[in-house]
Order: sequence, then C-alpha cells, then structure tokens
Amino acid sequence: MAIEGTSEKRERRIRLGMVGGGSGAFIGAVHRIAARIDDHYELVAGALSSTPEKAESSGRELGLDPSRVYSDFKQMAIREAKLKDGIEAVAIVTPNHVHYAAAKEFLKRGIHVICDKPLTSTLGDAKKLKKAADESDALFVLTHNYTGYPMVRQAREMVANGEIGAVRLVQMEYPQDWLTENIEQSGQKQAAWRTDPARSGAGGSTGDIGTHAYNLGAFVSGLELEELAADLDSFVDGRQLDDNAHVMMRFKAKDGERAKGLLWCSQVAPGHENGLMVRVYGTKGGLEWTQKDPNYLWYTPFGEPKRLLTRAGAGAGAAANRVSRIPSGHPEGYLEGFANIYTEAARAIFAKRKGEKIDPAVTYPTIDDGMKGMVFVDACVQSSKRNGAWVKV
Amino acid sequence: MAIEGTSEKRERRIRLGMVGGGSGAFIGAVHRIAARIDDHYELVAGALSSTPEKAESSGRELGLDPSRVYSDFKQMAIREAKLKDGIEAVAIVTPNHVHYAAAKEFLKRGIHVICDKPLTSTLGDAKKLKKAADESDALFVLTHNYTGYPMVRQAREMVANGEIGAVRLVQMEYPQDWLTENIEQSGQKQAAWRTDPARSGAGGSTGDIGTHAYNLGAFVSGLELEELAADLDSFVDGRQLDDNAHVMMRFKAKDGERAKGLLWCSQVAPGHENGLMVRVYGTKGGLEWTQKDPNYLWYTPFGEPKRLLTRAGAGAGAAANRVSRIPSGHPEGYLEGFANIYTEAARAIFAKRKGEKIDPAVTYPTIDDGMKGMVFVDACVQSSKRNGAWVKV
Amino acid sequence: MAIEGTSEKRERRIRLGMVGGGSGAFIGAVHRIAARIDDHYELVAGALSSTPEKAESSGRELGLDPSRVYSDFKQMAIREAKLKDGIEAVAIVTPNHVHYAAAKEFLKRGIHVICDKPLTSTLGDAKKLKKAADESDALFVLTHNYTGYPMVRQAREMVANGEIGAVRLVQMEYPQDWLTENIEQSGQKQAAWRTDPARSGAGGSTGDIGTHAYNLGAFVSGLELEELAADLDSFVDGRQLDDNAHVMMRFKAKDGERAKGLLWCSQVAPGHENGLMVRVYGTKGGLEWTQKDPNYLWYTPFGEPKRLLTRAGAGAGAAANRVSRIPSGHPEGYLEGFANIYTEAARAIFAKRKGEKIDPAVTYPTIDDGMKGMVFVDACVQSSKRNGAWVKV
Amino acid sequence: MAIEGTSEKRERRIRLGMVGGGSGAFIGAVHRIAARIDDHYELVAGALSSTPEKAESSGRELGLDPSRVYSDFKQMAIREAKLKDGIEAVAIVTPNHVHYAAAKEFLKRGIHVICDKPLTSTLGDAKKLKKAADESDALFVLTHNYTGYPMVRQAREMVANGEIGAVRLVQMEYPQDWLTENIEQSGQKQAAWRTDPARSGAGGSTGDIGTHAYNLGAFVSGLELEELAADLDSFVDGRQLDDNAHVMMRFKAKDGERAKGLLWCSQVAPGHENGLMVRVYGTKGGLEWTQKDPNYLWYTPFGEPKRLLTRAGAGAGAAANRVSRIPSGHPEGYLEGFANIYTEAARAIFAKRKGEKIDPAVTYPTIDDGMKGMVFVDACVQSSKRNGAWVKV
Repeated sequence: MAIEGTSEKRERRIRLGMVGGGSGAFIGAVHRIAARIDDHYELVAGALSSTPEKAESSGRELGLDPSRVYSDFKQMAIREAKLKDGIEAVAIVTPNHVHYAAAKEFLKRGIHVICDKPLTSTLGDAKKLKKAADESDALFVLTHNYTGYPMVRQAREMVANGEIGAVRLVQMEYPQDWLTENIEQSGQKQAAWRTDPARSGAGGSTGDIGTHAYNLGAFVSGLELEELAADLDSFVDGRQLDDNAHVMMRFKAKDGERAKGLLWCSQVAPGHENGLMVRVYGTKGGLEWTQKDPNYLWYTPFGEPKRLLTRAGAGAGAAANRVSRIPSGHPEGYLEGFANIYTEAARAIFAKRKGEKIDPAVTYPTIDDGMKGMVFVDACVQSSKRNGAWVKV
Repeated sequence: MAIEGTSEKRERRIRLGMVGGGSGAFIGAVHRIAARIDDHYELVAGALSSTPEKAESSGRELGLDPSRVYSDFKQMAIREAKLKDGIEAVAIVTPNHVHYAAAKEFLKRGIHVICDKPLTSTLGDAKKLKKAADESDALFVLTHNYTGYPMVRQAREMVANGEIGAVRLVQMEYPQDWLTENIEQSGQKQAAWRTDPARSGAGGSTGDIGTHAYNLGAFVSGLELEELAADLDSFVDGRQLDDNAHVMMRFKAKDGERAKGLLWCSQVAPGHENGLMVRVYGTKGGLEWTQKDPNYLWYTPFGEPKRLLTRAGAGAGAAANRVSRIPSGHPEGYLEGFANIYTEAARAIFAKRKGEKIDPAVTYPTIDDGMKGMVFVDACVQSSKRNGAWVKV
Repeated sequence: MAIEGTSEKRERRIRLGMVGGGSGAFIGAVHRIAARIDDHYELVAGALSSTPEKAESSGRELGLDPSRVYSDFKQMAIREAKLKDGIEAVAIVTPNHVHYAAAKEFLKRGIHVICDKPLTSTLGDAKKLKKAADESDALFVLTHNYTGYPMVRQAREMVANGEIGAVRLVQMEYPQDWLTENIEQSGQKQAAWRTDPARSGAGGSTGDIGTHAYNLGAFVSGLELEELAADLDSFVDGRQLDDNAHVMMRFKAKDGERAKGLLWCSQVAPGHENGLMVRVYGTKGGLEWTQKDPNYLWYTPFGEPKRLLTRAGAGAGAAANRVSRIPSGHPEGYLEGFANIYTEAARAIFAKRKGEKIDPAVTYPTIDDGMKGMVFVDACVQSSKRNGAWVKV
Repeated sequence: MAIEGTSEKRERRIRLGMVGGGSGAFIGAVHRIAARIDDHYELVAGALSSTPEKAESSGRELGLDPSRVYSDFKQMAIREAKLKDGIEAVAIVTPNHVHYAAAKEFLKRGIHVICDKPLTSTLGDAKKLKKAADESDALFVLTHNYTGYPMVRQAREMVANGEIGAVRLVQMEYPQDWLTENIEQSGQKQAAWRTDPARSGAGGSTGDIGTHAYNLGAFVSGLELEELAADLDSFVDGRQLDDNAHVMMRFKAKDGERAKGLLWCSQVAPGHENGLMVRVYGTKGGLEWTQKDPNYLWYTPFGEPKRLLTRAGAGAGAAANRVSRIPSGHPEGYLEGFANIYTEAARAIFAKRKGEKIDPAVTYPTIDDGMKGMVFVDACVQSSKRNGAWVKV
C-alpha cells in the first residue's frame, strides 16, 4: 500500500498557493487537509479572500508568511512567478465564476493549477480555460474528488479489463436534501451562491452535483456521452436554478455495442445527505458503488453470487491498491479520496520537475473532464428548455 | 393483527375456479398458495390447460373433482354458472393475450374475476375488458401483488396523511437480470412467451415488470400520470420486445403542486433478481421501500434522523396492520403479500354475498389500475418510437 | 423448485387435529397457516381450548364439524383413534407444561405428533416424552421452525460438505426487546405465561428463544455440545425467569478439531424484534445468516471476497432448493419456513402411510433435538446457579 | 464543525518526535498522517529504528534534519530535552514491550507522550509506567483511536445524558480473520511479533484487539468492570498466544443498577477484516455502532422506530460535532478518528503551554485507560487458566 514514507521515494514538498478558501469556507479547508494527508505539499502563499482584511486574517490563521498573503490573485501570480522559491502549484477554491480568471493567470506563468469543479460558470469561460490550459506547459487538475476513492478506481479497472463484458447501462444518482426548503433567502452562504446564476452558472443541482455523478459514470464506464434528454425543475418557489434533474442518456457505441444511462440529481430529496451512487451493467456482469459505503464494491458476474470487494482486501487490484493507505476493514473516507487526487497530481508534478514522463498509472481529472462537465450542464439546460428533446453533445 | 380465525368473523369459503396454471406453471401455483394462506378460498374447478390431457392430469394432481376439470374456459364458465354450488370466483393466470377472452366469459355470468397482470396484451383488448367489467356486477381484481405488502400500504397511508407533505418526486425501479442472455431461443418457457409480442403484447420489460413499478409508484404517491418520455431498448440480439426502459414522468398537479418521476425497469441488469424499489420525496419528508427488505420502510421527516419502520412494529399504522399476520421481526414475504390481495378480494366478495357495502378499507387493484398499466405501456412504446418525445396519457 | 402440484406427485391430504390454538392464540394460527401453504394437511378436529365454550366457538370459527370439536385432548385422542377417517396427525400448540401429557396420548395411539417447542416445561417430562416417542411407531416432529428457512439448510449443507473446513466457532444470538418492561404484570397474556415457571419451566429467555438459537447453531454446524458456562439474569424487577443469558460453549471435538461457541439471548435489548442470527467460522471459511434477511446467506471462503448467496439463486444447492417455492429475489419468510417443517413432516407421513422408507433428504427436528434443548436450558440454569461454572451436558 | 483554520484560533505547531515507525512499519505511518490532518504537529525528530542504518534512511525519507535522527530513544530524550527548540511531544509506536522503557525517558523530562496501545507487554511494566506518568507533569495519551470516531463520542454522550436509561448490557466484538492460518511462521512481520509473548505480552487477540473492544465498551457505557470469566483459545497449531477469546463480564453497579457484558475477539473468523462493534442496551433504549459504518449510529428509544443518526447530521450532538470535519454524508474514516486523538491531545498541550486549564470537553485515552486494558488482558488470561472462573479486576 502507498503509505507515505514507505512505498515511494521521498520528494521535496511542492510549494502550494491557494486562491479562495478564507475563514469559514468549507471547501478550502478540505483542499488543505487533502494536500497534507500524504505530505507532498506545503502551503506557502494565498489570496484567500478578495477582502484585504479577511485575506490577512485568514493568512495569519494558517500561519502564512505575511509577505505572501495577497488579496488579489493576479498580483499573487505575478509575484510568486518571480520568486526564487515561489509556488509551483495553486489550488483554486473560489465560487465557480472566478475559476477561469484565476486559473489563466497561473497557467500562463507555468504554475500548475488544481481547480475545484465545475470547471467554470459558463460554457464560454470553459472554452477559454481549455485553450489556456492547452497552451500552457503547466498541469491542470480538476478535483472531481470522487474518482479518488479506491473502489471507484477498482470499478473502472474491472470495466476496462472486460470483467463485466460490454457495458449496456450506466445508472448514476446524486441525491441530497439540504435545499428542500428555501434556505438561500435566509442567509445560508453556501446555498446563496450555489443557487445564484451569476456565481454558479446555468446549472444548479446539475452543475453542483450532477457533474460529479456524470463524471463518475463516465470514469467508471469509460464511455463517451452522445446525447441526452433532460427534465429539470426548480421545486422550491423563487429558486432560479434547477434543484432536481432527470436525465436520459445515450452513449457512443464502443466496439459496436451501444449503451444507455439514467442520471438523477436532486437537492430536494429528504433523507439523502450525499447519496452519490453509480451502477454499471454489462453483458457479463454488474458493478455497484455508493459513497455511503465507499470502501466496498459490489460485483456480480452474471449467473454467480454477488461478491463484496473491499478496499485493500481480497480481490482489490492494482488501481485501487495504489491509492489505499491502511488495511482493509479500516474505513478510508472522503478526505482520503480527495487526498488521492492531490497525491496523483503530486506524482505528475514531481515528474514534470525532473523532466520525466508521467507514469501512465497516474490518474486525475483533467481540463477535458471539466469541459465534459460543462457540456453536460449546458446540454441539460438546453434539453430541458426544449421540453426534454434529445440534445447532442 | 389479522390472523385468520382470530380477528374476523369466519365466513364460508369462496368456491374458486382457475383458468391456466397447469403443471409447471409458476404463477398458477403462486395464486393457489395465496388463496390458501388465509383459508378464504377453496379450489373446486379448473380449466388449467387448453390441452385436454394436461388439463386432466393437472386437475388430478390438484385433487379436483374430474367432473369440474375443463379444457375450455368458456365451457367452464357456462357450466359452473349453472351449478348450484358452482364457482363464485375465478383466477385467470394464463399468458396475457388470453386474459380478455377468458375474463369476459366469467364477468358476464356474474362470476368474480381475479386476474393476473398486465391486464391484457393490447390496449384494444383492455378497453373491451374495461367495458365488460363495468357492465358486470361481479368484481374484477387485478393481482398487482406488490401493493399487498404491509409496508407498501404503510407508505401509501403516510403519504395520504400528509406525513411527507406535497409529493415532488416518485422514483421507481424494477431491475432483473434473467434475460441478460438470449434464453428465449434455448427453450426457456417463461422467457419464450414473455418476449413474444403475440403473447405478451407491445411491452416486454415495460409490460412484465414496468407496470408493477409504475403501479407501485402510483399506489404509494396517490398521483396520476400526466405524460411520459421513454427510451426503450432490446439489448439482446434478436429480441423483439424491450428488455430495458428509461422513463421520465410528469404527474398531474395535485393541490397546485406538480411532481415528477423516473422509472427504470430492466431484465438485463446482472446482480438484480427482483429489485423492485419505490422512493417518494415530498416537501416535508421522504419514504423508501424495496422488495429485498419488504418488512421495512425508511421514513425521513426532513431535518430529522432517518427512521426504520417495521411491519407490525412501532410506528406501523392501521393500513399495514390489517394485512399483517405475525409479530414484527418475523419476516413476511412475497406469498403473504400476494395472499393479502386474495384476502382483500375475499372481504369484498363476502360483502357482495350478503348484499352489504364493501368496507372502504378494503384495497385491491381494480380494472382501472389495469387500464392505467396498459396506457403506460402503450405510452412508453409510442414515446420511444418517437425518439423519446413526451406522450400524454 | 418444490412448488406444489409441480414437483411432487400429489398425495391425499393428511387429516390433522390440533390441541390448543383457540381464538386469540398466536402460535396456533401460525401452525394452521403453515399446514395450509403446501396443501398437504386438512384440519378436521380440535381440542382448541380446555374451556368447553371456547373450544366450541373456536371450532366453529375454523369451520370444524362440531362432532369433532373436543375440550379434552385425551377424549379426542381416544375417539379419533377409533374413527375410520380419524386424524392421522396432531399439532400440539399449548403452553409448554401441557406438551408431555398431550403428546403421549396421541403417540400411544399411533397418531403422529407435531409439537411446538420447547419440548416440555421440565427435564423430567422431557425424558418421559422421549420414552413415549421412542416406543411409538408414530412420528414426533418438533417445530424448531427456523431450521425450515432455505438458507439455513444451505448453510448446513455447506458445512457438511466441508466448504468452510473444520468448524472452530459457532456464534449464536437471539435478542428481543418486548420484555424490557414488566408487561407480565399488566395483563399481557403472552408475557404472563412465558415468565411463569409453572407454565414455561425453569428457563425464561433461555427456554423461549435460547433453545431456538442453540438448535440453529447445532443444526448448521453439525456439532454436539460438550459443556457450557452460563450467566443468567432477570433484569426486570420481580421477574421470576431469566430475561437475558450469556453462555460460553465448548463443543465435542470432531475429527480431532475442537470448537467453541457463544450464545446470547435476551428479551430486554431495545431495538431487537426477533434478531436471530447464527455465524459459523471454520479453517477454510465463514457463514453468516440472520432472520432479518432470511433469503440471504453470507459465505466467505478464506482469502476471497465475501459472497452473498440467495434463496433459489446462483449458488443455492439441493438442500435449499427443495424447500424453496418461488424465484429468487421474491422473499419467502417466517411462515414459509414454518410450512417447510410441516411439509417435510408430510413427506415422512406419506412414506409411513405406504410403508415406504422415508427419503433421507427429509429433515425436521425430532424428539432428540427437543431433548437437547431441554438439556441446554437445564445446564444454563445449573451453571448460572453455580456462578457460571462449566456444566457438562 | 471543527474544520482547521475556521473554528479555532490557530496555535503554533507542536514539535513532535517519534520512536519506532521506520520504513515499512504500518502504525508509524498512520500516526504521522493522524498528526498532519489537522496541522497541529510538525515532525522534527525521530528514533525511528534501533538499527542505525535504518534509522538514518527512514529519517531521510521523512525529510528530518539528520542531526535529529537518533537510533536510541534515550539519547533522543536527553538531547531533545536540552535543545531550545526540542520536541514537546513524542509518539511511541514500537512493539508493546518497548513502550515502558521509552515512555519513561520522555515523561521524566517533561515531554508529552502519545503512545500506541496496549500500554505495555506486562502488567508489571504497566504499573511502573502508571507511576512514571503520575509523577510527570507531562501528558500521557494512549491511542485507543476508535474512541476518536465522532459517532462513538455521540453514543457516549447519549448514554451519559440518560437517553437509554440505566445500562443493562454491553456487547462488544472485534473479529478479524488475518491469522486464520499460521502466517507467523512464514515470515509475515506483523503476525510474527503479535503472536510472540516476548514482544506482545501475555495476550494475543485479547491484547491486540480485545483491549480495543473493551475500551470502546467502557468508553461508551461509562461503566467499570467488576469481574470477568474468559475462555481463550489458540486455534492455530503452534500458536503461543490466544487467537480467539470469549469473555463474560459483570460491571460494577451504578445507581443501584447492575450491568453485564459479552466480549468476543478473534483473529480466526473468516470474512471479518476489522469488525469492531459495540452495542449497549438500557432500560429506555439501545445503541449500536460498528466500524464498518463508522459515520452512523443506530438509536432505538424503547417502543419507537429505530433511528439512524449520522455524523454531522440531524441528531448529532456537541460531542460528535467537535470532532467532525466535513458535512454529513461524506464519510470520515479511520484516519480522521485517529487524527481526533492527536487533535484532542494538541488542545491539551496548547493549554499546558500557556498554563491554562484543559477544556473539560477534551477527551483522549489516558494512562488509566491503558492500565484498565492491561488488567483486562491479565484477568482474561488468569480466568482462562482457571477454566473460565470469575476473576475480580
């Protein structure tokens, strides 16, 4: 297992900066924990808030050198790029509409970007960001963190190895219940920006969690979406963005075999906290994974009893084991999965440092995965506007 | 609890006939067990097969009086209607395409009909059967047996009582895996007729199991379907009827609140035996039930911990308790649920016998539920032919 | 599958009598349903209560011929034995202290006895009943009904086939919560006799449910108990019999391999309805079964992923399939398991009728299993009185 | 939630040393991750191995200053105590028999000790360590890490608040399967020292995992053990220490109410990875927690439906929330639980630094918990040697 200090030669830590993630932000703290778990990063600079006082106090809380606390990400990019020991990578954890503007400043200066999802708030921004990333020599890593769970990797590897035959069905869901009532109007900060088109973009639940479910389905199945038909709703009075989506999907044929999918994402389904689930069925077997039980993967070879594969346990393969830390039966969770994305990125960054080829086993979500997510949201919105007509992607 | 002989005054057993269900038929045997469990029926006549020898041997096996073994259901209807102690009710358990022809012969002679689902093989037949049922004084009972599970009744009662508020979402699924490969061409009898349009009708998985899932969603939610958009597939080469269906639904607004639904039925999802599940979410809570754990119902009042309601346990209400037999923690299953339909029908038949009003608590699927199922299948097929366009029902 | 009318040649129904089980009795109704499910029995006589009026009204409710309704079981045994079409078998469903007196009257007249458990209320009665059963040509069947669950049979068969190697551990538990408070003093009838030494015998929870758990562990493992150490409690003030028991067990070595066990039974464990569970571990694998999910059996070959075997599904063997009725994924429950004991008994009775050898596959609990249960309870009580010292059995 | 940088004022990181935990050691790496997750520690020195070359290479891998890499813990204690920026705390992660010798060197120099469990390899050592800890002003923290799981804290708080009434039963189990075969003789390093009395002490499974289960039961229930009766086995030929234990327990009466318990620990139960579970039942309700699903806690108020409490979800209280990092539905796991012990220790160390009183909410296992574990193992071994007689503790 990839326990730090044991299985891999130790590299000098990556100097990391952060944009967004000041006091009180949930996802910034998650990124920092994820960066620390395997000890490949050192946070040394930050534009943690655009409000100078908050940027300063947040920097102090995190123990940053005051000379490397910024209130403007552009300034940070310019200055850090010039420092001898300036940052090598930056984590962007702002609301969606800032992603593009921030990322391009670092990419153009050769600083690797680790960016929260969805890629941007608009498809236009996404295309520009794709261009910026393609033109840069720096890496672009999107934190579709659920692909970091070991048993998700196990599932992907099994599908790729043909263990369930040709894939016919990909069923994805991500129900939540936290927006069942109109909390955005009573000052809940997380709810406020996520339901605001200006900050989130055209998709509500589709952008926030639907992209995760879709990314997971695509990651595990290895399939490309061809077209979709979507029915979106805003069940809560006054809500501007969708809070529930039903999506039918048709994937591109692979080896002559077509596949279909269903995706349900919801923020108004009482009883669901973060009920992400993916189920894939092929000609020879089925696989089921749910975030509620992330260390387990159900595998059913057709005509045989169901088998429960466990993280680091009997039946776990190379793809899962390289991102596992502790023995089977001791659960790893969300933060470890998130850390796996950071650690995979670190492995790529270490290779770049040394001018070596990145190990093909290194797996993290890229700018292209981000583009696919944006196209998915856009297609959902278009289809729903056209009464659920099929939209090619 | 409604244990026989204890909670209700004992009535004379109902004399029952059966059409179909000869040796080797699965569902005929199920109906007979269901009829016996609460001891309200006595099987006394049968047209168990249209092949005279088989009808005869099947009758002998079941211990029927040879004079009441028929090879023609019409003959049986005519003769039994004239006998002094002729049958009062008949169970029709043939393949779908025979339902109408058989049912009308009994209905027109005042013999109650207990008919397997789906109602018929064509929408045309269904309309004629509806007419026949409406014109008859006899009862028509459709064995949508899953509505007989106590915790399904519990769910329906809770929705009706407003315990989850206004319903927004109804998610239904019924995945199986037994048709993952082309077993209909290798002589599997159950597969052969179920994949044959002439005997099953226009719907494959939609007719066989999709109707069950839809019926269950409608039963629990109390909602009426307004329109649907469907994407049907026959994944297995050479199969004529659908073996997988994705359906998006819009329900009629109720008290000004609209609701949506998703339905997935499949016969090609390895790992699923009979994975019937219904989940309903409203403005104030959610409910989840799955056939795999039929004695349990998950209930989540929004903002509170999930609660696990159990059959005959704390929190079980009148609707569930009247169809429970044994203490909580001792599982009741499929046959008991099926028996509940028979027993509810018996209660109605007893009332008819005595010219009394049927107790409004008596609940069984009717000809109208059957019509809705046929309309659902037809709409699925129409929508899918029109590339998933919305079809009003 | 053993669906009636399909897999076995039909025999004339067994004429059955019943002692106990009048109106309001829970277990009598269960026995009657169990006897009806596979249609091998016909209830024709009864001494349903020792109170003549209640015996009469109960008989009427069940539709018995008034001439065959008795208020005295001895009278019934004498008369029925003389009738040309007298009963061939009797079900004894009284409180425990009546079992012996009733059973001996039927056994000595060659009438098969199907008796509820535990065998008797005292070890002395048990020995006398054992003698009576051994001297009679009639069958004695004890309704340790949980051994009728198909997946329990599957587990037993797998152990016998060596699929888990030599058994080392047998962990049994049967927690309930219904006696958490002192309901026996507020008139709950079931609680009153079960906590009364005069009617139940020396064991409370040990006799009522501990015997079931022990029987199940022995049935599945195929092991014989050698000695036990027990710590019994009556947690509820004023309760005379144990309501919780902790028992350590040592089994007789088999093929040179010793095995140990733990048994916990409780009536004061809030949250448990009828939480019967058995887990068996050997040198090569493990098996786990719980009544909450009776259609499933977990099987772990050592060093491989866990497998979930399902009733009538892939991996189910002959022992389970012969007592299954319906396809996998449609749950069978407690009543079907109970019915399996009745049906196995019927198979034995049919063989006796014809003077044939009983098929060795026929499996039901015998007088010897009943004796073992009595010895278990007695040993628990003795050990606990001696402060948990080991007691040989 | 206690997300770093948000909910608490930031303190200067604690300078940490480590004894043991060189390359290839599992638990050392776990301690380092746990120390990093909330960023309260900085590893600056180590006696990572007693083999100088391995100590040096391990130190290099972890990026330690070579001048602070030692191969002798005593040397390290002496020198670090004199350094101006010497370590403030040390993590001891060696095999059990080294704990005492190492810990006393740091304690006597005022360096806080964070020590792996069990406390020592012998009861004699434990008593000496207890004395050393009592005489030192430094803190002694034992990493009974399972008490760091938020829902374990939730359970403890609920019991303390009387939500299940007076506790009657505490059922503990910790089954594993990794020692089902004799892997200690084929060179598996972890197995070798854990089955060796010289390095592990008198208890095998009892010391390694039984102490965890017992600690958890005591932590949640708040009860003190009075006496126990144990039956220990070494099922695998040639094994010197127990690999399975059955233990009956009697707790000291509390408020006049007595309580009993059962404990099962095993290393030979195929199918179990790290199946730690605790179940507590009282006069008013029950609680169940299992490591397999660590973010959930089942709570049954007697006579009401079961409720599923979730980490950071509805129903989670202050004790759980202060050790939660991320929203409900995103699983936290073993490493986060382990980190909670480190973070609680950090809070205590921060208070000591400033001469402030330690917040009474700070909760971590102490030297006394360690003593109780040693006494438990000793009592198990004594009882088993005396054929399971009750042994007072």
